[in-house]
Amino acid sequence: MKIAILGYGNLARGVECAVSQNADMELKYVFTRRDPSSVKTASGVPAKNVSEITQYRDEIDVLVICGGSATDLPEMTPKYAKDFNVIDSFDTHARIPEHFAKVDSAAKAGGNVALISCGWDPGMFSLLRLYGNAILPEGKDYTFWGRGVSQGHSDAIRRIEGVADAKQYTVPVESALASVRAGEDPELTTRQKHTRECFVVAKEGADLSAIEQSIKTMPNYFDEYDTTVHFISREEFERDHREMPHGGSVFRTGATGAGREHRHVIEYSLKLDSNPEFTASVLLAYARAIFRLKSEGKTGCMTVFDIAPAYLLPMSAEEVRAHLL
Amino acid sequence: MKIAILGYGNLARGVECAVSQNADMELKYVFTRRDPSSVKTASGVPAKNVSEITQYRDEIDVLVICGGSATDLPEMTPKYAKDFNVIDSFDTHARIPEHFAKVDSAAKAGGNVALISCGWDPGMFSLLRLYGNAILPEGKDYTFWGRGVSQGHSDAIRRIEGVADAKQYTVPVESALASVRAGEDPELTTRQKHTRECFVVAKEGADLSAIEQSIKTMPNYFDEYDTTVHFISREEFERDHREMPHGGSVFRTGATGAGREHRHVIEYSLKLDSNPEFTASVLLAYARAIFRLKSEGKTGCMTVFDIAPAYLLPMSAEEVRAHLL
Repeated sequence: MKIAILGYGNLARGVECAVSQNADMELKYVFTRRDPSSVKTASGVPAKNVSEITQYRDEIDVLVICGGSATDLPEMTPKYAKDFNVIDSFDTHARIPEHFAKVDSAAKAGGNVALISCGWDPGMFSLLRLYGNAILPEGKDYTFWGRGVSQGHSDAIRRIEGVADAKQYTVPVESALASVRAGEDPELTTRQKHTRECFVVAKEGADLSAIEQSIKTMPNYFDEYDTTVHFISREEFERDHREMPHGGSVFRTGATGAGREHRHVIEYSLKLDSNPEFTASVLLAYARAIFRLKSEGKTGCMTVFDIAPAYLLPMSAEEVRAHLL
Repeated sequence: MKIAILGYGNLARGVECAVSQNADMELKYVFTRRDPSSVKTASGVPAKNVSEITQYRDEIDVLVICGGSATDLPEMTPKYAKDFNVIDSFDTHARIPEHFAKVDSAAKAGGNVALISCGWDPGMFSLLRLYGNAILPEGKDYTFWGRGVSQGHSDAIRRIEGVADAKQYTVPVESALASVRAGEDPELTTRQKHTRECFVVAKEGADLSAIEQSIKTMPNYFDEYDTTVHFISREEFERDHREMPHGGSVFRTGATGAGREHRHVIEYSLKLDSNPEFTASVLLAYARAIFRLKSEGKTGCMTVFDIAPAYLLPMSAEEVRAHLL
């Protein structure tokens, strides 16, 4: 399978690296909107300007689109689905139906397969929510995120006056997790599920208490949470907060039996040292699936819900049954 | 969807009960090898002798076959796949390829869809092993079972002279679980992963130390484990050991990054108050899927690996995307 990447940020670098862990895949090109001579890829694979992408059509089985959900993907994924099998990690939940419709018609017009909203949330967490709801139709869903870095919240802090740099960690509340895990079906407010921990490098002479106040009262991002702010040096920031760990847990709880007397707890948990590298690894498994589905003559847009699990592995159905069932 | 059950043991009673939690399903019949007048179903649904089953063909969308894997299912599932869409929980891992082949040819001959080896292990645990292997191709798998009742081990104890009744609990070793969860990738022997705890009601005058010795040294079942034996009264047994809880955890661990410097731990854990009722709940979700696949013209034998998750829920693809992705 010949893979190409569009974009060259953290996620793209994760894809580049993950290709080397999949023996049936080969990375052909990285496409960029920048001057390609300014992009030095880690693997040495050639960088090309995206304006030339269609001339490489025959050399690419799946194009992995590594852009932002706010403005890049809504435009890019439908555009390139006309010429390539494409996959993205679009994560603006509310706009998924609209994005799906656009990508679907482009992919169908081009006779390609596309898969959107892939990764771990949306992605694996969505799948586990689906399986949980199918198995326990009467029940409750819980999702906890963290401990991990939220890019959006870190960016929001960096926009505050006097802030030089910042990382925000989303932290699940241990007692809430324990209660869900014990099958107690608690009702939890936003504040009871997660806390937010911020590490901030202030500019010289900045008003620290004003920064702290701005963070803690920021609507949508922080005001509904218990937030802790730590001011640290640039040195400490570079030493301890360069990585992008993340993770979380999806639960489905419910009861069965004539009197619903038997309780069940289903938990799926991820502990990830690198959010972009894990997301990239999920993208590649699904890239394999859409390539195989395309070979079977399928076209159009799909999500993880539409992919039979057997398509994700580079083995025959017999081997998978013999070794994994 | 019209459901029928073949057999009327614990799993069948779980299915009977779970049908009432799925608004799109209706239980039509329970088929039994016994005299049907001797079978009083919990829901009041009619019991029929299995010899008459083909005359009810038009009234049944999926037949859930609730038999034992040792002798019942290898014979029953291929036999009834000729006339019905069927699903079973066949769990003799080594014989799955052979069972699959027989059921597949019967289902194809009859124009039906069959699904074998469904439940939580094999079943959900298998799925999670597959997803884990697809996402982290370089990594390790771990499966822990329990704390829960092993029917096979309980039966083995009951066959010992002097034993009136017995329940055996498989217990995962907490320190081993913690090490895997922490991403330490330990090498674990059989003894280091699980212990076995036995609650035994002895017959009057039985030689307790001989019973204990027989249990602890029993090849395949107990000799490779640290086993604890508790002799208890019939009263205590009936009070504390009537239920069939089970569960366990499937892990996939692995590393990504240029130097494989980022570790990831994927965990799927089940805590089940009732093993048969949870297994039944999984069976019904997949019964829905095979009914839908049959409506699309599919035939033959499948496993959980072949079912796109969207087929498990009684909602349209749009609804599923909007609510669960």
